[in-house]
Formats: sequence, C-alpha cells, structure tokens
Amino acid sequence: MRLTRRYRFSASHRLHSPELSADENRDLYGKCNNPFGHGHNYVLDVTVRGPIDGSGRVADVAALDRVVTEEVLAPLDHKYLNEEVPALGAVVATTENIAAYIRERLERSWSSAFAAPGPRLDRIRIEETDNNFFELP
Amino acid sequence: MRLTRRYRFSASHRLHSPELSADENRDLYGKCNNPFGHGHNYVLDVTVRGPIDGSGRVADVAALDRVVTEEVLAPLDHKYLNEEVPALGAVVATTENIAAYIRERLERSWSSAFAAPGPRLDRIRIEETDNNFFELP
Amino acid sequence: MRLTRRYRFSASHRLHSPELSADENRDLYGKCNNPFGHGHNYVLDVTVRGPIDGSGRVADVAALDRVVTEEVLAPLDHKYLNEEVPALGAVVATTENIAAYIRERLERSWSSAFAAPGPRLDRIRIEETDNNFFELP
Amino acid sequence: MRLTRRYRFSASHRLHSPELSADENRDLYGKCNNPFGHGHNYVLDVTVRGPIDGSGRVADVAALDRVVTEEVLAPLDHKYLNEEVPALGAVVATTENIAAYIRERLERSWSSAFAAPGPRLDRIRIEETDNNFFELP
Amino acid sequence: MRLTRRYRFSASHRLHSPELSADENRDLYGKCNNPFGHGHNYVLDVTVRGPIDGSGRVADVAALDRVVTEEVLAPLDHKYLNEEVPALGAVVATTENIAAYIRERLERSWSSAFAAPGPRLDRIRIEETDNNFFELP
Amino acid sequence: MRLTRRYRFSASHRLHSPELSADENRDLYGKCNNPFGHGHNYVLDVTVRGPIDGSGRVADVAALDRVVTEEVLAPLDHKYLNEEVPALGAVVATTENIAAYIRERLERSWSSAFAAPGPRLDRIRIEETDNNFFELP
Repeated sequence: MRLTRRYRFSASHRLHSPELSADENRDLYGKCNNPFGHGHNYVLDVTVRGPIDGSGRVADVAALDRVVTEEVLAPLDHKYLNEEVPALGAVVATTENIAAYIRERLERSWSSAFAAPGPRLDRIRIEETDNNFFELP
Repeated sequence: MRLTRRYRFSASHRLHSPELSADENRDLYGKCNNPFGHGHNYVLDVTVRGPIDGSGRVADVAALDRVVTEEVLAPLDHKYLNEEVPALGAVVATTENIAAYIRERLERSWSSAFAAPGPRLDRIRIEETDNNFFELP
Repeated sequence: MRLTRRYRFSASHRLHSPELSADENRDLYGKCNNPFGHGHNYVLDVTVRGPIDGSGRVADVAALDRVVTEEVLAPLDHKYLNEEVPALGAVVATTENIAAYIRERLERSWSSAFAAPGPRLDRIRIEETDNNFFELP
Repeated sequence: MRLTRRYRFSASHRLHSPELSADENRDLYGKCNNPFGHGHNYVLDVTVRGPIDGSGRVADVAALDRVVTEEVLAPLDHKYLNEEVPALGAVVATTENIAAYIRERLERSWSSAFAAPGPRLDRIRIEETDNNFFELP
Repeated sequence: MRLTRRYRFSASHRLHSPELSADENRDLYGKCNNPFGHGHNYVLDVTVRGPIDGSGRVADVAALDRVVTEEVLAPLDHKYLNEEVPALGAVVATTENIAAYIRERLERSWSSAFAAPGPRLDRIRIEETDNNFFELP
Repeated sequence: MRLTRRYRFSASHRLHSPELSADENRDLYGKCNNPFGHGHNYVLDVTVRGPIDGSGRVADVAALDRVVTEEVLAPLDHKYLNEEVPALGAVVATTENIAAYIRERLERSWSSAFAAPGPRLDRIRIEETDNNFFELP
C-alpha cells in the first residue's frame, strides 16, 4: 500500500552555472538564467510504502507532516534557493537538483521520524509548473 | 498498455478502534475520531492492463463500468461506511482499509466481468482529499 | 478590487425534512436521504472587496483567516452537520442552507474582525462536489 | 457575451514597504517579507466583453494574445518584480498592485489592439496560489 | 442564491464562413479552419438563481439535469456540430455561437421544466479548452 | 530521475471497424461510432528518464519540445484523425491506438533528437477526457 501526501511551497531560483560564460548560460537556460531570478509555486508529493498496521494506516501522517515540514518546507518555503539554501547554491538550482536535495534530506531523517519497522520512503514528485514535473523513485 | 477510468463517490466514516480507550482513539485519530463521523468526496481510479485487442481497445469499458458500479459504487456511495458496510465496520474505516476492500471486491468479480484472456486489474488509487491519496498495486 | 481565499472542510450531512413522510423524503432527496448520512469535501471561497490600502493590500489576510477559522471551520470541519450544528439541525442541511449559515456567521463577526473602513464581505461560494457549487452574493 | 483567455507567468517578488521599519515589515508581511524574495506561478485570466461579430466571435483572439504578450507577459514573465519592473518597485509588489499594473497596461494599449467598436476589457483575475486570487472588474 | 451544475460533452466543429474565400477563412480562423474539423471536450456550467425553497433548495436538480440533457447534451454530445446540428451549420460554429444556441434552447424549455415561480436561468459558461471559456449572462 | 512534460492537442475521431457490420459497430462503440466523428482535448504527458547531467538537468527540454512538436503535435493537432493521419485511418482510431502511434513516432526519432547517452523515453500518458487515460510504458 502506498500513501501520498501533497505539500506546497513558493520559492525563487535562477539557473546559472559558474562553469559557463554569460552567453553559454543564456543559451542553455534561456529566460530561466535571468540574473534576478524568478519563482514558482512548487507542489511536492511525498509517497511512503508499507503494510497496513493495526491502526488501519500505512503511516502516522502527523509524523510524516512533521518530518516534511522540518526537513523540506522550513528550509525552502518563501526562500531564494540560490542564496539561502547552501546545498542548492553549490549546484545549479534546477528542479532536478531540488528533488535530489529533498530526497536526501528526508532519507537522512527517516529513521528518527519513523521507528522500525515503519513505512519506507517510496518516491518524491515535484511540480515546477502545471506542465512540468519530476519524479525520484 | 494501461487504461485508467475515474469514478467518484461520497461517503462518511469515523476512525475509531474498539481496542483502544476513548483517549487513545482521540490521540491517534484526532478530529477523524469525532463520534458522529464526517465525510469525503472520494475519487477512485481503476487501472487495467493488457494488450490492445482487435477492436483497438485494452478493455470493454462498459464491462468495467458495470463491475465497478456493482461491486464498489453500489455498496459505498452515499453511505456511512462504519454502519452500512459490514466489512468496513469490522475494521477501522481508514481509506487504506477502504482501498483494500475495493481491491478485494474487484478481484473476486473480475473473472465473471471479463472473459479470459481479458485485461488484468493493475492498480487502484483512491483520493480522500486533494492532498491525500492511496495506491494499491 | 476583490480578493478571494479558498478554505476546505470535510463534513457529513443527511437531507431529510421532518415535515415530510419517509416516502416523500426519499422521493425528494433520493440517495441524499440515506438515514446514516454521507459526506463531502467542501471547498469554500470567501471573497472580500475594497480599495487597495497603504500596505498594498485589500485585506489583512491573517484577520480573514482568523474569522473564517473561528466562525466557519471550527463549527463545521469533521462534523456531522445535522447532529452537531444546531442551526443546521433545525433546517434541512442542504448546501444552500450551509451557505446561508456561513454567510450569516461571517456577517455577524465582520465588524470585530475588520476595523472600519475595512474590506466588505462580497460573496461566498461553496462547492459540494466538483460538479456542484453555490454562490451567495 | 464574455470571452476569457488564460495566460501564465512565473515571477518572484518581495513584500516590503520602505515607509515601515524592519520589524513592522516582518509583522505585516510575515514570510513574504523575506529579504531575498520568493516566487509564484501566476495565472492570469483576461476577460473581454462584446456582441458576437459577423465572424461568430467576440474578439480576435490573436489580437488579444498579442496585446497581453507585449504589455503583460514580456515585462513580467521570469522577472524579479521589485527590481525589474519599475512601476512595481515604486509600490509594494503585492498581487493587488500587480493586478492594477496589468489592468492599467492593457487599458492604455486597448485602442491600438482593437479597432472601435471592438470588445471591451471586462475584468482581469490573477491567481497567486491555488488558494488565493484577485479580481479587478 | 445561485446554484451551478457542471455538464460535459465531446464534439467536433470547423470554423468556416461561406461568405469568405478559402484564403480569408484560413487567415481568420487559422488551424480551426482545417476542412475535416477537430474536436473538444466542452465543459458546460449552468447557473440558476432564486430563493431557497421549503425543501432547502434553490432548484430541483433532477429537473435541471433533465432539461439540460434533453435540450443540450442530446443534440450536441458526440456530434460533428457543423453537419449534425442545423442551427449551428447555419452560422459559424464558434463556441460563442454554441453558447448562444444553448442559452436559447434552455430559455425556450424553461417554463415547462420549472413551474412558476421557480428558479431563473442566470448564466451559462462553456469551456472550449482549459485556457478558453465563454459566459453568457 | 524522471521528467514529465505536458502537451495538449485537439482532434476529432470516429470509432469504426471496417470488419464489422453497421450494427456491430454501433453495439461495440456506442455513440463513439457516430458517423461524423466527435472530438476531444487530448492531454499528452511525455516522461523521460536518466541521470542528472552537468547542467543540472535530466534532458534538454527545448530538444524534447522540438521532437514532440514535430512528431506528434504537427500531425495530430486540429485534425480529424481517421481521415488525415493515414496510420490511424488504417486501424480503429481509439485512444489506445493513438498512444501506440505517438510512442512509435517518438521512438523512431529519439536518437536524432538526443545524442547518446541521453535521456530515455520512459512512458507516455494520454488523457481523452478528465475521467479516462492511457499509459504506455
């Protein structure tokens, strides 16, 4: 059984690689390279997997909300990701790298959020716009 | 090839375990333990899988609609699940258990709905709210 | 300028008029007359109207959230409306009457939520399902 | 007859009033006052009104797309509104003020986009998030 | 109080004016002038208005469904509008003209669907795509 | 990492098998067998899979947009599929067969769109209506 919960955050980013020239950056990232950044309403779906427990549930959703709030929403919501999230300032702040960052943060805190044998983190999915989304199984 | 069809039903439920005290139930299920129940518009996606047949289709959708209507919508739509669906009154009426109930009902009637070798039941997915859904592969 | 904010609550209700016979109720309200009730995820849009103030806003959204939470979500969310909301138990608990109840509650508390000359309550809109909604200007 | 067309743009902004202290700004605008800004996927609905003309249409949609692209999407899409849009840098860059800016830009170019007697600009509506929108009739 | 119910139909159409040359039609209607037609999933919202009656309702929704099914869905659903709906073959089959056709059909049958003093037809709204809709008050 | 991009096209089709009689066609395909065809707004999600490259991306989205536009949207958008797309005129123009057609067109052009080792085509998903979709992994 899989349970998915949906979270939302608003943030801004700029796509820019320090290893490329200004022209190369503009060619590669187009208007996403705009020097002042721009923003999105990100939609994050976190999926967990496991058997149904004695309480009739796959996971304690309050515990899931807590770990997502602390590890993901607190550092990312209403932030300029390039400047305020060091791990994303060190790479190009694409949504692919945001997804990898979120996955890694959740993995690292999982065992303190859910006592073994609890639900496993199955997948994250992040929408950048209505027409663009990323999945990391 | 997979085909998914979307169905909807409205029902009410209460999360309450007879094995727990009133306080334990309130701690575990929060406002979902409210004694009079509360309700949702459930969205059910039923996915079937198989090759494209000579008619250009994966499944006879009229047959699929018939089995879902009889086995799922008839017993659940506009019902108080704890009181009116014995199999759900016998467990905690979480959406996880509703999903398992639906899956089991469809499995049991599948061979009378679709002559062999017909499409297989691939997955069910049920949304409890816009921010919460469950999948059972 | 109009600002609309969207809120959600889950509740159950039963359509039944004490002035009608059992048969008349069933004829009039169909499956919504089911004796144990059934439920919905209601979506509530509250619209306020006024000029843009010095802070660049039509309304203090924190104040709006506060009055909607206290006057609407607290009494209605995760409730069986017929049994737990006296004003709705006294009428038929249709979504029309729920809308009128919400409008009246917000009107009554408006002046304590927003100091004059603040934004006016312009309209409420409530969705019962994806295919059914009600507006009260 | 009214015709509405939907457009989208992504931008970042910061809510900050130069007339207030740092503490007052933080109290008033909360996390929207974050110094580096944050962003949204804005959804813009432009509504025009008029009779059905001989071609069976209310408005030439190509002309409408052209004026919205030039007057709204070009200056706002993928921009940091406070820094890159002077008219929005001069006020607090709330969505209310963004709506007023859009309305004023469209009004000013309307007569060169649509020869008289053409459709009138009826309304603009802008969504900041799924739960927040603004209308300017 | 206003009640809106949502209906859906799928149909195909071609935009072509017999009063224009082939080139003029292509210039005016673009790819919508394609000689074989193309199609849409139309979403139709019908809004009625009136006081709340003794049953707690604005309108008898079964009666509303009946008149919309007979007067609108039966002639339009799964049809090629230019060829199979004479009134739309006689004009350019734009969504504006489809809206006017629907409004006129509903007006004409209203008094036989709802005994006086019943709800009034307030507005119809028709979506041609997610980014395009038409309202006729 | 998977990236999905959403595309849309409007087209019309008719479900009809030349190997069946008129009555058999009507029984099998119902109103979808209507001789003049009918239409839909199709929503196409194309999913690609691969590692994050040095630019922080799974795929060059401009290259993806180009191949989908040329191979899918150009032949299908605003067309009557039975008459104007020979490969779909040769089979029954069901959405299952449309999905197989799209998959085959993208596969065939993939290596010229993306230099090896580039992202792989992972899945296509096509919605015919809000309640009906097809996936081809």
